[in-house]
Amino acid sequence: MAVGKSVVRVDARSKATGKAVYVADMFMPGMLIGKVLRSEFPRGKIVRLDVKKARSIHGVHAVLTADDIPGKNVCHVVFEDMPLLATGEVRYVGEPIALIAAETEAAAQLAIEAVELDIEPLGILIDPEKYNSPDSPILFGEDNIFAHHKIRRGDIENAFAQSDTIIERVYRTTYQEHAYLETQGMLAVPTAEGGIDVYGTMQCPFYVHGAVSDVTGLAQSRVRIVQTTTGGAFGGKEDVPSLVAGWASVLALAAKRPVKLILGRTEDFVSMSKRHPSRVEVKLGATKDGKLTAAGIDILFDGGAYATLSPVVLWRGTVHSCGPYRIPAVRVDARAVATNKVPCGAYRGFGSPQTLFAIESAIDELAEKIGMDPVRIREINHLRRGDETVTGQKLGESVGLQECLERAITESDYYNLREKLHGRNGPVKRGVGISTIFYGVGLGAGGTHFARSGAYVGIQPDGSVQFAVGTTEMGQGMRTVLGQIVAEAFGIPFERVYCLPVDSSRVPDSGPTVASRATTMSGRAILVACSTLKGNLAGVIAPEWGVSPKAITFGENCAFRTDNPAKRISWNDLVERAFAQKVVLTIVGYDSSPPTSWDEDSGQGDAYVIYAWAVNVAQVAVDTRTGVVRVEKLWAAHDVGKAINPTLVEGQIEGGSVQGLGYALTEEYIIDKNGIPMNPRLSFYHIPTTVDAPEIHPIIVESAYSEGPFGAKGFGEQPLMGIAPAVANAVFDAAGIRLREQPFLPERVWPKLKKGAR
Amino acid sequence: MAVGKSVVRVDARSKATGKAVYVADMFMPGMLIGKVLRSEFPRGKIVRLDVKKARSIHGVHAVLTADDIPGKNVCHVVFEDMPLLATGEVRYVGEPIALIAAETEAAAQLAIEAVELDIEPLGILIDPEKYNSPDSPILFGEDNIFAHHKIRRGDIENAFAQSDTIIERVYRTTYQEHAYLETQGMLAVPTAEGGIDVYGTMQCPFYVHGAVSDVTGLAQSRVRIVQTTTGGAFGGKEDVPSLVAGWASVLALAAKRPVKLILGRTEDFVSMSKRHPSRVEVKLGATKDGKLTAAGIDILFDGGAYATLSPVVLWRGTVHSCGPYRIPAVRVDARAVATNKVPCGAYRGFGSPQTLFAIESAIDELAEKIGMDPVRIREINHLRRGDETVTGQKLGESVGLQECLERAITESDYYNLREKLHGRNGPVKRGVGISTIFYGVGLGAGGTHFARSGAYVGIQPDGSVQFAVGTTEMGQGMRTVLGQIVAEAFGIPFERVYCLPVDSSRVPDSGPTVASRATTMSGRAILVACSTLKGNLAGVIAPEWGVSPKAITFGENCAFRTDNPAKRISWNDLVERAFAQKVVLTIVGYDSSPPTSWDEDSGQGDAYVIYAWAVNVAQVAVDTRTGVVRVEKLWAAHDVGKAINPTLVEGQIEGGSVQGLGYALTEEYIIDKNGIPMNPRLSFYHIPTTVDAPEIHPIIVESAYSEGPFGAKGFGEQPLMGIAPAVANAVFDAAGIRLREQPFLPERVWPKLKKGAR
Repeated sequence: MAVGKSVVRVDARSKATGKAVYVADMFMPGMLIGKVLRSEFPRGKIVRLDVKKARSIHGVHAVLTADDIPGKNVCHVVFEDMPLLATGEVRYVGEPIALIAAETEAAAQLAIEAVELDIEPLGILIDPEKYNSPDSPILFGEDNIFAHHKIRRGDIENAFAQSDTIIERVYRTTYQEHAYLETQGMLAVPTAEGGIDVYGTMQCPFYVHGAVSDVTGLAQSRVRIVQTTTGGAFGGKEDVPSLVAGWASVLALAAKRPVKLILGRTEDFVSMSKRHPSRVEVKLGATKDGKLTAAGIDILFDGGAYATLSPVVLWRGTVHSCGPYRIPAVRVDARAVATNKVPCGAYRGFGSPQTLFAIESAIDELAEKIGMDPVRIREINHLRRGDETVTGQKLGESVGLQECLERAITESDYYNLREKLHGRNGPVKRGVGISTIFYGVGLGAGGTHFARSGAYVGIQPDGSVQFAVGTTEMGQGMRTVLGQIVAEAFGIPFERVYCLPVDSSRVPDSGPTVASRATTMSGRAILVACSTLKGNLAGVIAPEWGVSPKAITFGENCAFRTDNPAKRISWNDLVERAFAQKVVLTIVGYDSSPPTSWDEDSGQGDAYVIYAWAVNVAQVAVDTRTGVVRVEKLWAAHDVGKAINPTLVEGQIEGGSVQGLGYALTEEYIIDKNGIPMNPRLSFYHIPTTVDAPEIHPIIVESAYSEGPFGAKGFGEQPLMGIAPAVANAVFDAAGIRLREQPFLPERVWPKLKKGAR
Repeated sequence: MAVGKSVVRVDARSKATGKAVYVADMFMPGMLIGKVLRSEFPRGKIVRLDVKKARSIHGVHAVLTADDIPGKNVCHVVFEDMPLLATGEVRYVGEPIALIAAETEAAAQLAIEAVELDIEPLGILIDPEKYNSPDSPILFGEDNIFAHHKIRRGDIENAFAQSDTIIERVYRTTYQEHAYLETQGMLAVPTAEGGIDVYGTMQCPFYVHGAVSDVTGLAQSRVRIVQTTTGGAFGGKEDVPSLVAGWASVLALAAKRPVKLILGRTEDFVSMSKRHPSRVEVKLGATKDGKLTAAGIDILFDGGAYATLSPVVLWRGTVHSCGPYRIPAVRVDARAVATNKVPCGAYRGFGSPQTLFAIESAIDELAEKIGMDPVRIREINHLRRGDETVTGQKLGESVGLQECLERAITESDYYNLREKLHGRNGPVKRGVGISTIFYGVGLGAGGTHFARSGAYVGIQPDGSVQFAVGTTEMGQGMRTVLGQIVAEAFGIPFERVYCLPVDSSRVPDSGPTVASRATTMSGRAILVACSTLKGNLAGVIAPEWGVSPKAITFGENCAFRTDNPAKRISWNDLVERAFAQKVVLTIVGYDSSPPTSWDEDSGQGDAYVIYAWAVNVAQVAVDTRTGVVRVEKLWAAHDVGKAINPTLVEGQIEGGSVQGLGYALTEEYIIDKNGIPMNPRLSFYHIPTTVDAPEIHPIIVESAYSEGPFGAKGFGEQPLMGIAPAVANAVFDAAGIRLREQPFLPERVWPKLKKGAR
């Protein structure tokens, strides 16, 4: 009835008309403006920090340093290494040192300038590849390594020795800035009874909930987190909002007034997390007929000044580093290291885009060396149902890669297209590239303790339904899709369902909204709740019909006897009767995933409960006179299990593809060798605009996941992930040059064209 | 651990320091001011209503009449007779006709004045005793009768015939204004996604929820009602906020802006509900040794222009009309009738104070006629465990009247006190009076369909607990008492529990907060939730201890083996383990009462599930020179089942007693014979102040109710109910005059003193 239909998303109109309420739109009587004083040094010792003058400025209600934090001075992500406010030492440009709450923006700015701060510079580590150089300072632990993950599978030495062909290549990626339209922001409101309510833009209310409790010292029961309309996140609002909420909260409690703290664009750019720059060294072996024999991969991620999410981002990158292939012998070593730069964190793909760029480029390079078509080598090696991943996980169901590949090839008319493009003359060379990728849906073994979700579902006396979940809408369409799941479960029209705002005090801790898990996990919790409620409703009519409640089906706006659908009662009538009988029609549903097996030493185990799959085919034009690479067409086939809302799936494919194009072609954030950000502005950091978008052909593949709601798997991240390698491979196909470092800016492409370099 | 302790109420500090946020304190960006244009006629035909000019005023965003209501023009209480806005005919002074939303108060006022309104006066009915006079217009149905309730028990004619003594008396009571400190007010906010959130002062969020859905035409799922700090209610915010919320909501939807509508004091006074004026005729028969034989009672309530709650208020008055006595033969006829005055409704006691004033005065008059002491006649006749009420209900448990009576007599030293007071000379005469009353707790047979309640209880990972309920705090201390129940259930300190704001979208429909039901009903729902959660927690540790989860007890901040309390785990450790194991720790608890038996024709059945009991002893001073009656001391013994928080019970006794004194002595709201309000201002309507309060001796009696949380019954209303008759009886004892019409103002007392009238 509702699932599989492209209903208009519930927030379409409000966002398009400007009615959606972002935190910046909010106002509370007595509200103050919050500001952050930040370090201008990449590393240094705080030798003086005097806020007396700042506090005396008219209109200033609070100036806080680390000493004034009522709770713990920490932002707990994976470790507890990052403070809410720097104390003793600063470690990156943009690190927060002091907080101000004032009546006006101007007063706050005056106070920032009035803080007396002396920082004595210390030695810095900027190049992650020098993390273990004797000249480099130690920033974390004993060796600057935040995390080291491994995969050990088969006899790698022997496998390489017996390979017919071996390639060894190094690939590099740089930062990617989330460039969400809405910068970070929070409004913290002390409640009359000694609690705090925090409103803001975020992905993970329960992370924020814990963080605010930590830094304020308030019991978790007294902290309430409400997500406001969130103008983009892409991972950038996973852990970072905990900091922003922490700042706003300690200010609000100190000032005893609501405090709104919204970051400016440049401030946000400089200080908020990014995608990890990476260096990935790939050694691949194959037989002469193209069968992969061995993979040796060395991964280095630039974690920045604090660990934050680096260990888990790296873990996902590690698990995906060999691509969606059967490889009998594998050795992966992955390290995330500390540098005196902004801490890197979550970004759509979460470590996978870096390693998939490497492996998917390397596969093409290997094919080229063997003299095999890039599609053919993938056909030979890609994972199928019953295969084992390189972590030793047996793939039971919902392995749609083959169908993705077939459909992408067919719909792009890959072979003919290539031939046609190669046949053209002129300074602009055209070609086609492919990538095949996979993505572990949900948190998997790297975050099994977060793999839980709750849903509140309340059938109203008039038969309409309210629900709430603990995962968030950040533009992906979750509220709409989950509403469709509720409607489908009850067999009522989508319009009768209303999604309540996300509020940490409405539902059980539902983990973070990351890892493409919202549809699956919140969907499952919703179905648990709906199932109980349907049982309660069926119990009202079952005795009259002389059947068990289980023999009653819901659909078509009715409940009916499964064995005799003519015997039915309308949904409204049944709800009315149930309500009159005081049957409970409002409950909390809850679902949690069982722990997955994982051995950290060998990197073997069931990394994720299920995988999504995708194939990208890119048609590019390379202008040999300028080095400009332009993607003209893109076919993107994605196995999503079930498209609850096909238009939203297509929207995700389109949006993610364009974001992937920015990552591939234009987005470059530069921190110079002294640790100074060079271009923290959207005018100098180029995200694609509409006119940069190619013709995109979304292809939806539905290989049902039996445990997902109506077969759905998550897939929100993967549209981005396979773009860069498909483009790099297409550029090679077009112009014969191999791009191993993104973004593929003209200044990087043109010299290669000139050299004819491979 | 928490129950039975006088913890400080959670809202004490915020209310005392002015931090509590009332709806008038709220502000939303773009917010408009709402105003109501009201009738100045008690009855008339609307012959012209033109809002064109009003709409054209600068700053005015909406001017609405009945024609502009998007949903149903109705405020559904018991019937659907009252419109949201008058259409065709107005029926009382203050009836709403049009609504305005404007940028400023001044613009709204200009718009009100610019509405072109002509009303053609129609014949009026002001005196309820003329409801069936041939000269009176018909305002409701065929006979102006909103409701007619009866009790028929035994052979009344024969019983009177065989009585040794019979008295027949008429008692009258007038309006009582709630005089809540905070007037009615609502803030309606259209949500970005087509719903509406309504914030305001109220008792019954689920009534408001239904009402807003009705008038806006929005599905109930799209309507969210949030109670703001409520500055007093006393029944005046039971049904009336539905109107106010309806006005604010239709304005907000029309203007597409938040609209705040706060009533001014005089506007609130004129147009909002009041306690029903009454005429109660009592005929009582007794044997010569004081045994009651028969009661014939005729009740007339002035319902005002619309039925609203009159049928149910009258029903409660009917059930309580014979007092807490065994009477073998009873005939009661009770009618609520229509007049062209403000609709009357709920007020602490809900129809009982009127009939209890009558019966408790009559019992004294009967005793006097027999020559028996007022205490003695009560001792002979009052209900005890195992007795039957006049509606034929057998009293099983928790009948604490005898203990109340004994303790009130003992602690006041009743007999000696009386003698001592009578012994004094001078123009000021002193005396002592008594009343014995009962009160059906909860909704009973008159509202069995509302007898449900839900609670949301969430144990946080740090072991602190959040909870929410659907009943409201209006000053009675509910949030505190329910927090104590949560703490006691889990065996943790009260400080670890936090009560969330009341929000219709947090919990199942929990019925209204009336009838002294909040502690009992929400407490029960909480205990259901806590019991499940304790089971979940016990399940975590039980296997390790080799016992069933049921063999584990919670208390002392621990869970321990019931059979071996040394085997224990701290609450925090257990919660931490459960959370790590992803056990669900957040659920909705739900409780509903079974339907009670009731026969409307005979007035026989189980009217209420349980009764609370009270005895008041009042010491008065009557100044024979002026007619001023002053209550000097008051002993108030109340059987509350269990005092969850003794200080709050005492506070309720003190507050209710003073409110009862206002009703007895000073509060008189006058609507003249033309239907025009004479004194709708607190400067002319005199509620008692602190200096008017006597010395009050609260006496707590705990006759446990096995189904109540920790034995508690509700009792919030009854402190008011027995005051007026105790005072009237004391005045008789002091000065020998019988006051049968309240309030006992000097101008009513002095002529009687002069006449020595009885």
